[in-house]
Amino acid sequence: MFRTTTNGELTLSNLNEEVTLSGWVQTIRDKGFMIWIDLRDRYGITQLVFDEDRSSKELFEQAKKLGREFVIQVKGTVIERASKNPKIPTGEVEILVKELTVLNESLLPPFTIEDQTDGGEELRMKYRYLDIRRNPVKEKLIFRHKMAQKVRNYLSEKDFIEVETPVLIKSTPEGARDFVVPSRMNPGQFYALPQSPQTFKQLLMVAGMDRYFQIVKCFRDEDLRADRQPEFTQIDCEMSFVEQEDVLEIFEGLAKHLLKDITGKNFDQFPRMTYDDAMKTYGNDKPDIRFGMQFVELNELVKGKDFKIFDDADLVVGINVEGCADYTRKQIDGLIDWVKRPQVGASGMVWVKYQNDGILTSSVNKFYNEEDLQKIAEKFNAKPGDLMLVMSGETNKVRTQLSALRMELGNQLGLRKGDEFAPLWVIDFPLLEWDEETGRYHAMHHPFTSPKPEDIELLSTDPGKARANAYDMVLNGNEIGGGSVRIYNKELQSTMFDLLGFSKEEAEAQFGFLMNAFKYGAPPHAGLAFGFDRFVAILDGNEVIRDYIAFPKNNSGRDVMIDAPSPIHQDQLDELELKLNLK
Amino acid sequence: MFRTTTNGELTLSNLNEEVTLSGWVQTIRDKGFMIWIDLRDRYGITQLVFDEDRSSKELFEQAKKLGREFVIQVKGTVIERASKNPKIPTGEVEILVKELTVLNESLLPPFTIEDQTDGGEELRMKYRYLDIRRNPVKEKLIFRHKMAQKVRNYLSEKDFIEVETPVLIKSTPEGARDFVVPSRMNPGQFYALPQSPQTFKQLLMVAGMDRYFQIVKCFRDEDLRADRQPEFTQIDCEMSFVEQEDVLEIFEGLAKHLLKDITGKNFDQFPRMTYDDAMKTYGNDKPDIRFGMQFVELNELVKGKDFKIFDDADLVVGINVEGCADYTRKQIDGLIDWVKRPQVGASGMVWVKYQNDGILTSSVNKFYNEEDLQKIAEKFNAKPGDLMLVMSGETNKVRTQLSALRMELGNQLGLRKGDEFAPLWVIDFPLLEWDEETGRYHAMHHPFTSPKPEDIELLSTDPGKARANAYDMVLNGNEIGGGSVRIYNKELQSTMFDLLGFSKEEAEAQFGFLMNAFKYGAPPHAGLAFGFDRFVAILDGNEVIRDYIAFPKNNSGRDVMIDAPSPIHQDQLDELELKLNLK
Repeated sequence: MFRTTTNGELTLSNLNEEVTLSGWVQTIRDKGFMIWIDLRDRYGITQLVFDEDRSSKELFEQAKKLGREFVIQVKGTVIERASKNPKIPTGEVEILVKELTVLNESLLPPFTIEDQTDGGEELRMKYRYLDIRRNPVKEKLIFRHKMAQKVRNYLSEKDFIEVETPVLIKSTPEGARDFVVPSRMNPGQFYALPQSPQTFKQLLMVAGMDRYFQIVKCFRDEDLRADRQPEFTQIDCEMSFVEQEDVLEIFEGLAKHLLKDITGKNFDQFPRMTYDDAMKTYGNDKPDIRFGMQFVELNELVKGKDFKIFDDADLVVGINVEGCADYTRKQIDGLIDWVKRPQVGASGMVWVKYQNDGILTSSVNKFYNEEDLQKIAEKFNAKPGDLMLVMSGETNKVRTQLSALRMELGNQLGLRKGDEFAPLWVIDFPLLEWDEETGRYHAMHHPFTSPKPEDIELLSTDPGKARANAYDMVLNGNEIGGGSVRIYNKELQSTMFDLLGFSKEEAEAQFGFLMNAFKYGAPPHAGLAFGFDRFVAILDGNEVIRDYIAFPKNNSGRDVMIDAPSPIHQDQLDELELKLNLK
Repeated sequence: MFRTTTNGELTLSNLNEEVTLSGWVQTIRDKGFMIWIDLRDRYGITQLVFDEDRSSKELFEQAKKLGREFVIQVKGTVIERASKNPKIPTGEVEILVKELTVLNESLLPPFTIEDQTDGGEELRMKYRYLDIRRNPVKEKLIFRHKMAQKVRNYLSEKDFIEVETPVLIKSTPEGARDFVVPSRMNPGQFYALPQSPQTFKQLLMVAGMDRYFQIVKCFRDEDLRADRQPEFTQIDCEMSFVEQEDVLEIFEGLAKHLLKDITGKNFDQFPRMTYDDAMKTYGNDKPDIRFGMQFVELNELVKGKDFKIFDDADLVVGINVEGCADYTRKQIDGLIDWVKRPQVGASGMVWVKYQNDGILTSSVNKFYNEEDLQKIAEKFNAKPGDLMLVMSGETNKVRTQLSALRMELGNQLGLRKGDEFAPLWVIDFPLLEWDEETGRYHAMHHPFTSPKPEDIELLSTDPGKARANAYDMVLNGNEIGGGSVRIYNKELQSTMFDLLGFSKEEAEAQFGFLMNAFKYGAPPHAGLAFGFDRFVAILDGNEVIRDYIAFPKNNSGRDVMIDAPSPIHQDQLDELELKLNLK
């Protein structure tokens, strides 16, 4: 037996017990006549003591040879510590060691195994198995496990059945790029890895499963952006005989259940915001409503004052940054430079200060007099001490730019607190979006998403205005889940395909399989999928999803630890009847 | 709202309530003046009634037009049935319908949606979404879900952490064939899909996770045999600071927990049998011990009696089939033909009957007299009425053949009862197996499996005799899980690689990555993996794993429902910088 107890358990109540412990050597303090060792395992730290008086000479010499991260087993007696450590549960006791076995030695790790390590990200990724030994990383993986358990138990209690859908499926040309898997048994043919189990979950509804969920790996061969992973995990859900309201209720319940568990607080009904309002008020369909700075539109106040930039703009819009009127010229220039960076792409920004002495001044004093500024300040509901920042341009662009600035200020001013949670439903998304490049409509969610019943008429008159029964759950400025009510009516589906520019043949080729299943009695159904990696990160007060994945890939889709992807043997290619065709 | 209640809930206590129900039309009984419809959903069946007297003419006409598997919504009143059906929970009531909405029509399904259907397997696979509507299929998927939930909750309570390991990993030449995934971002390079998370779970132990599990998809590109799937699910587990005994205890606990849930019974400690004993007594390393017919070796009794076949054989071995002495010549010939089939490959079989009148007779009376047969019968512990069947040949072959016969007789005689569970540990597997073809040893489990400490010396003297700290859990004649204690000592590992014929360079190339991790303080660890698909099937009293997979592939690895794999577009190949190279 390697241990009688773990390193997180012993207290004064175990005094004088003979115990066996195993673990890693975390730290060694060698005072010459006495050696203290912190022994670590997943459960905690226990202090070991060796001393010249009470330990045998051999044992003491043996202890002197230990190094950091050695794996050892000790037998000894639980004694009371002279100087106690109230920060850890085992801090009142230590083990007077009688027997020491080195189970395995360790090379010196390439970075310290401490909460604050000296290792850079690249190095820690390469030695991920050492990084996971550090508390902050280990705790994130344990947190993820606990959340997954809670999700599963909650949904199971609500009669959802977890069904495993296949990973080796069929490539479909729509949507993002598929990863494909050549089939040796069927040369020239390929499986694809699922971007989501969308088709299968709708089939399970046709199959009468009624309530389905799955915590499932999905795959997308995208050009990776920061913090995107080629494989990611979804909580995928679908329900039959429901309307939008039923879906919102169930999954709001799930989110509340998790939030309650984390914060100890009961959350009220989540606010709901239409897509149009979100865009108008936050410039963003996933607003962080933990803080204010709502958009204020100024067209009627600022136009016709000979300031050409505003006169030419579709939209002049700003935010009021409370208490920041004392920003220096340099600070404001910093913000202007920030919005001018190519990632944001604004051409400039106007500021209006409501000084503490009540005087209003601005970067456009030439065009707007005190009275004009007064009206603007009123519109912003600004008070002395506030700083108003105003941008202008094409409506969608300027909203996106101002939204980026708002989030940046939220971060700079510490308004985006990790332990504060502001959930929100964004609803009434547009059904379609116009794609300039192809000159046709695309489904904003997917082609099976149902329009709002009252907007069905718009499909023949002004389809771009039609809203969908689609919804996103937003938490702290991140879309953590989204879904829609599906079309189950053949005629409506056929209208949708027409709108999306599919010929009957194309629709058949791409969706024929699901449409065929729908001929055998498809129930009304609706669903939602959460991005589990992101959901977990945000629930843990964080935004970097990579930290919540045990073995993540880097931004080029590479696992630097195992060095994958990598070349394969020629006979593997031969068996698959494939040839490299490198450019 | 599509329903106020499901179809499995209403009883006499709901009498006179106004309800809304939705579901599929299961059956229609049209008596002319009265129509009864069974409305079905996942939860049950509710009977609807329309009649000329109490229903409006329109409604009645509407009901007449319904067809099987139409999806409908009805509103009506709960009334008491005239003729009750005690077999279903809702059998005392019916719904007098007031309003009927057809939510979706249905084509006539290609097979009946009944417990006993008229559809062949091929057809049901193609229309799997209709097959799942049938109770026996649906119930199996729900059973699978419940078992997965129980496994997760049990292991979580025992401090196991579920960690998701990556699906896009690196191809390794050892073991079965990998499925590979070309990387577009890294042309000419490939990911592989995991055959198991073996490396990652061992890394998680190096990472200090202590107790890991995962219910996880694994992939093997094998030439498929009956009831093998290219993607399958494992309960994958690993523990640190444990010995074999700890692992057996934990996972026996898990199995008992599931068995208790299913049978209501507490199971005693599982019997343990060494590999050698299993082979000697059952000819098989996964014996079904629900029934007897243990092997009896007869060499000492039958040799030297001029019966050349037995004289030439390495092993003469038989089983006693109780109460089958009255088998006719035809029945016995049937068994002899059965063992001579190429799948079994025996050249013949000898029988000895202990007739009810106490007389012993055999197919080899020429060579063995009554006294000889008496001795044989005694060795078998046979009684009047029993039939002894004896085979001979090369030891391993004859054991395999006799084992096949034993299982066949178990099936024929109804001794393999689905609701009876006989779990068993098979332990002390050989560490190595000799491969005639390559003239070298292979690791029977895998190259990281630890020999039994007392057999380490054999590695240098007689490696083929060394036993491993490896174990299988066997249930009703199926291996449902297996694992081993891993080597964590560098020198021992290096001895193993030598034995397996790896040069230092080869060992480095194939396992260097894990060996490198082991340099940083690997703890003693051990693990086990259950084949979840099979485990679930057997727990449900079944053996066909395909029935427990929502969307299985056929024996050519094809999903006939979605028609995958399939050709992909030329531009997908171009992007991957690949070319077909069809023979």
